[in-house]
Amino acid sequence: MGSNSFGRLFRITTWGESHGKAIGVVIDGCPAGLAISVCEINEALAMRAPARNAFTSPRSEPDSADILSGVFDGKTTGAPICILIANQDADPSKYEPIQNLLRPGHANFTYLEKYGIFDYRGGGRSSARETACRVAAGAVAKKILQREGIEITAYIKQIGSIKAMVQEEDFMRLRSATRQSPIFCPDLMAAKEMMNAIEFAKSKGDSLGGVVEFIANQVPIGLGDPVYCKLEALLAYAMMGLPASKGFEIGCGFAAVEMHGSEHNDGFIKVSGRVETQTNHAGGTLGGISTGMPIVARVAFKPTSSISIPQKTVSTEGDDAIFQLPNGSRHDPCVAIRAVPVVEAMAALVLVDALLMNARAKI
Amino acid sequence: MGSNSFGRLFRITTWGESHGKAIGVVIDGCPAGLAISVCEINEALAMRAPARNAFTSPRSEPDSADILSGVFDGKTTGAPICILIANQDADPSKYEPIQNLLRPGHANFTYLEKYGIFDYRGGGRSSARETACRVAAGAVAKKILQREGIEITAYIKQIGSIKAMVQEEDFMRLRSATRQSPIFCPDLMAAKEMMNAIEFAKSKGDSLGGVVEFIANQVPIGLGDPVYCKLEALLAYAMMGLPASKGFEIGCGFAAVEMHGSEHNDGFIKVSGRVETQTNHAGGTLGGISTGMPIVARVAFKPTSSISIPQKTVSTEGDDAIFQLPNGSRHDPCVAIRAVPVVEAMAALVLVDALLMNARAKI
Amino acid sequence: MGSNSFGRLFRITTWGESHGKAIGVVIDGCPAGLAISVCEINEALAMRAPARNAFTSPRSEPDSADILSGVFDGKTTGAPICILIANQDADPSKYEPIQNLLRPGHANFTYLEKYGIFDYRGGGRSSARETACRVAAGAVAKKILQREGIEITAYIKQIGSIKAMVQEEDFMRLRSATRQSPIFCPDLMAAKEMMNAIEFAKSKGDSLGGVVEFIANQVPIGLGDPVYCKLEALLAYAMMGLPASKGFEIGCGFAAVEMHGSEHNDGFIKVSGRVETQTNHAGGTLGGISTGMPIVARVAFKPTSSISIPQKTVSTEGDDAIFQLPNGSRHDPCVAIRAVPVVEAMAALVLVDALLMNARAKI
Amino acid sequence: MGSNSFGRLFRITTWGESHGKAIGVVIDGCPAGLAISVCEINEALAMRAPARNAFTSPRSEPDSADILSGVFDGKTTGAPICILIANQDADPSKYEPIQNLLRPGHANFTYLEKYGIFDYRGGGRSSARETACRVAAGAVAKKILQREGIEITAYIKQIGSIKAMVQEEDFMRLRSATRQSPIFCPDLMAAKEMMNAIEFAKSKGDSLGGVVEFIANQVPIGLGDPVYCKLEALLAYAMMGLPASKGFEIGCGFAAVEMHGSEHNDGFIKVSGRVETQTNHAGGTLGGISTGMPIVARVAFKPTSSISIPQKTVSTEGDDAIFQLPNGSRHDPCVAIRAVPVVEAMAALVLVDALLMNARAKI
Repeated sequence: MGSNSFGRLFRITTWGESHGKAIGVVIDGCPAGLAISVCEINEALAMRAPARNAFTSPRSEPDSADILSGVFDGKTTGAPICILIANQDADPSKYEPIQNLLRPGHANFTYLEKYGIFDYRGGGRSSARETACRVAAGAVAKKILQREGIEITAYIKQIGSIKAMVQEEDFMRLRSATRQSPIFCPDLMAAKEMMNAIEFAKSKGDSLGGVVEFIANQVPIGLGDPVYCKLEALLAYAMMGLPASKGFEIGCGFAAVEMHGSEHNDGFIKVSGRVETQTNHAGGTLGGISTGMPIVARVAFKPTSSISIPQKTVSTEGDDAIFQLPNGSRHDPCVAIRAVPVVEAMAALVLVDALLMNARAKI
Repeated sequence: MGSNSFGRLFRITTWGESHGKAIGVVIDGCPAGLAISVCEINEALAMRAPARNAFTSPRSEPDSADILSGVFDGKTTGAPICILIANQDADPSKYEPIQNLLRPGHANFTYLEKYGIFDYRGGGRSSARETACRVAAGAVAKKILQREGIEITAYIKQIGSIKAMVQEEDFMRLRSATRQSPIFCPDLMAAKEMMNAIEFAKSKGDSLGGVVEFIANQVPIGLGDPVYCKLEALLAYAMMGLPASKGFEIGCGFAAVEMHGSEHNDGFIKVSGRVETQTNHAGGTLGGISTGMPIVARVAFKPTSSISIPQKTVSTEGDDAIFQLPNGSRHDPCVAIRAVPVVEAMAALVLVDALLMNARAKI
Repeated sequence: MGSNSFGRLFRITTWGESHGKAIGVVIDGCPAGLAISVCEINEALAMRAPARNAFTSPRSEPDSADILSGVFDGKTTGAPICILIANQDADPSKYEPIQNLLRPGHANFTYLEKYGIFDYRGGGRSSARETACRVAAGAVAKKILQREGIEITAYIKQIGSIKAMVQEEDFMRLRSATRQSPIFCPDLMAAKEMMNAIEFAKSKGDSLGGVVEFIANQVPIGLGDPVYCKLEALLAYAMMGLPASKGFEIGCGFAAVEMHGSEHNDGFIKVSGRVETQTNHAGGTLGGISTGMPIVARVAFKPTSSISIPQKTVSTEGDDAIFQLPNGSRHDPCVAIRAVPVVEAMAALVLVDALLMNARAKI
Repeated sequence: MGSNSFGRLFRITTWGESHGKAIGVVIDGCPAGLAISVCEINEALAMRAPARNAFTSPRSEPDSADILSGVFDGKTTGAPICILIANQDADPSKYEPIQNLLRPGHANFTYLEKYGIFDYRGGGRSSARETACRVAAGAVAKKILQREGIEITAYIKQIGSIKAMVQEEDFMRLRSATRQSPIFCPDLMAAKEMMNAIEFAKSKGDSLGGVVEFIANQVPIGLGDPVYCKLEALLAYAMMGLPASKGFEIGCGFAAVEMHGSEHNDGFIKVSGRVETQTNHAGGTLGGISTGMPIVARVAFKPTSSISIPQKTVSTEGDDAIFQLPNGSRHDPCVAIRAVPVVEAMAALVLVDALLMNARAKI
């Protein structure tokens, strides 16, 4: 078990607090013989790193990984891979003045109640900083997926009420447009509007929510298991474990509710010797198992809980109080943006695990 | 592991096919000393049973449970509880004519690809009949929750485009109104409209989707675990493992995306000596741990895939074909309705597991 | 988790009490496409069944299995396989007079303390009757192993102080000699002596212990995982979970303690193009991973706790008492004998699980 | 799952190679509020550290731990605890000359076959250096056990053919005598003989095996779970996962085989208001659950595989060769000695996990 672990055969365990000495991840179950370098991991981390631009937190963390084990002569050995990321811009002092206040939208209340103790330094274990570990592990997962031809891309689909128009069909263009956008939004027109909205919210000390969509392409038929380990259930579990996520949907998702069966059902056809579906309302799975069509799903993120506007709260003693973030506090005006590479990483972790699980489905 | 198992400490394993001899569930990890009777289980099963009215499948299954183990002198002993439900109205012959066609929206294509073999009799293992086992296990889970004062109710929130108005505040009235509705919808006006819509769709041989909402009341603070076993992640995993589910959201869910942080954050207040939040946009958790506020979440179900309208498909050999359900086929025009007690059961299974997991969070 | 489950990818869950309605096992994770019939399972069960001869319990259980799910057209489908064995000669009435006494060497004391309730009918869940389920599951496991050429045989190595001489080299002869012996001892001379010893102990109302050895032949190199899931650790876990087992050793086992490294180390040689070891003191594993040499290990069983001789004890109320088995009580004078097919089954379950786990060890 | 993890609720994951940058362990599931300091961990590590005296390996590793996470203000927070131990005396160059030879008694053959790659530097992941991580985690586990009054001590029971006389009854004296012995043997007379034997073997370039016994005192009744998670099965699994272990037995163990039931059964008595057994042949468990009597068990260790005497082997290419350890190679003449604190740590890990698992056995 272990609530800080994720995955079955490709299993990661993360540890570390936002303002502790370091954070890290242990990958257990990675097949041997995979070429992996610290550069590839750092490249992935750079996508998630803060302070890339005005739309993310100004905390300056180079997020440089160190591979402590499991790789020999540039290849994985089958032994657990420990990746450590030092905390370099940790500054716990800022959090001292607010250590005795319940932070609206944050986990210090629930942690305190559950554990009787809370590492208040930047949210400690509850901080989104932990997601850097997911990205590091995801970089390893992606290398395995690439060998099978599986590619994943995530991008901003919506910020506040501004929706991006996305051409899901052209995967390569979609990915390249996403990488070029400072906010990972492939629709340049929408992106501009979104950035304006973020800057406006930020100027008011407020924050915005967003939707991240991801597509996994070239997923082989057969990944995912009935009955409880359906691929969409594993993806939902992965995504709803992300900080600030409030919803998950696959294919048409909630919109499917307003469709008729005759409209939603994807008809089967044969295309160049291969069975496909004419449409992909299902989003790439049937009965919890991948159909070979692209997996398309979305994650809803709430507006960042850390805002500069003063908020009504109570102290840990139960006294009425006003919560006010200390000057110079560093946070993202819209967490959905930096969640993009994390969603991609989690999707990769789910898929690589499902791939390994599928190795012996039949005799 | 085991993809037919669910839960960590309160762990269920289900087995059985729709038109096999029987279906069943083994509950492992139920605390000893709990009074449980077969009547209580049958009562829960009756809520999910088909053929209750015109809005559900006409298959006539009394769904009468037999407790084969784990209960002695009316009490659980700590040993695994095996509950068996015989299949009485099984009629696999109907499925023979369509055994070589891929069924749009169904799992026979993916099962065949994954396993190379498919029990085509009523969908075999992929049938929603399996959910009876979840309801049986959920009945046991609910008895434990009741001892802690935790109550759960699920109901129809939307069918097609018709939305119910629900007063979430009055839990007891909500539950009682739900139980009285033939389609589990507490808003009588909306329910009437929904029933008309269902009958209309049925008359066309078509089907409708729906949203099921559930509320868990009096959940103690502290259930759920960081980082990967967040309570909302476990709930999402549970619900997205249900047949036909396409989306999950908690609290404001996808609507949170269009809110500002200043609006979405729930302020803390002290109410009669207890810390609460003024609003409950979060839906009852913070950082993956229950806040003590009601847990409110929703599950989207696609329109039933089994429709009487002929559909384009291919055969298992890959030839173009028309899929036409045999006369007298039995299915639900809107699976969301019978999903209501199943959603309730899954929520109960998640909460009882989280409750047991929480027993030793601190020294 | 689930303490009534065993295995990772090939995972069994057993349920049922000795004198309840039935016992059974659910196999989750069996690859699809495996031909399996109820006859094969019944054949395996017959080896373990009581009342075969004077050396086993007179309880008359035909142990006829029913496959309730997971097999279609004679082949596994990838769905969970539920095998049910009805209890036909259950007779709980005999246990009523002794229900309030702690049984020396039995589990009723510990179950009562742990659970506050005990199904006293024949030991309930703590009865060795549960091992029939292991044998049924083991029969399925063996069919998979056979496809890989892996064969397992277990036999009596020692009863009381009488030791059998076993020629481990000739696996086929060893197995055939074992099957012909009423007490599964391939050394006919020793077997005769053992049977005399058993009859003598039985006539005194006493019981004997024994050692069961097993050999797994043609195990491919590479099964088992470092560091905690070493093949020998998994085997030890499997065997020490058997009722009445008190010790496990592999290769030279405890005798290795008195050897020097220069003597114990197995030198590598090349035999017809394949690396082997000259000796097999290690018993078929190095570093927790199979070497390709036969796996040879032993399990120690204590003398049966159920004896006719009166024993000093206390009642559940704590009063001094004499424990005396009711007339006509049915038990084995030496549990090691009927443990032979169970040891074989557990070894098969461990190996098939390790085989599936090994599918993706390297890229 | 994860083969580098151990435990269910108190779960450790270890990583690192013998001559890599560092080794470490992540503890997930430690209750919050436990006071723990790095000194306590270092103290435990010192017991296992090499180069303490002539009877252990001369590799000079101070084994100084660093707690990277999970502890705040001197107390555990419920977050994962990562403990890192740097490798300071790593010297992989020595292993280069032998990298292409199969080492008799070592894992390089099986790792190479399984993974296709082997970190030959000091055995890489297969090195007993990994056990330092177990000891570090065990130190945390022991702090929890101490709160419950549970104490564990392990000691040398046998080296080669020399057996120690141990008075198991006086736990405190036993522990103190053990700590004072350079080879952890509480029988001073035997210890002297053992040290002579070790020195003699060492002078010949050879090695010796040994038996480590451990006692857990004041274990509450009720730890351990039927059917597959019996306490003795979990202990066996833990101990047989140790490098060089070849056997495990509890209570009378293999000697029980030669006893009669009337002799082996422990009669129940009432002692000062508490049910106990007159004897403790069972070794502290019945039906897999602790009886409240001391848990007494033994682990057999083979003679160290690393010996200076030249050995026949083949190269990784399959050519005949002579394996000769490089000059200055550092190894233990008898691994059982340094295994003593590791056995103690593993017993602690099993017991603390069983303790947490037992929290909700009954309503």
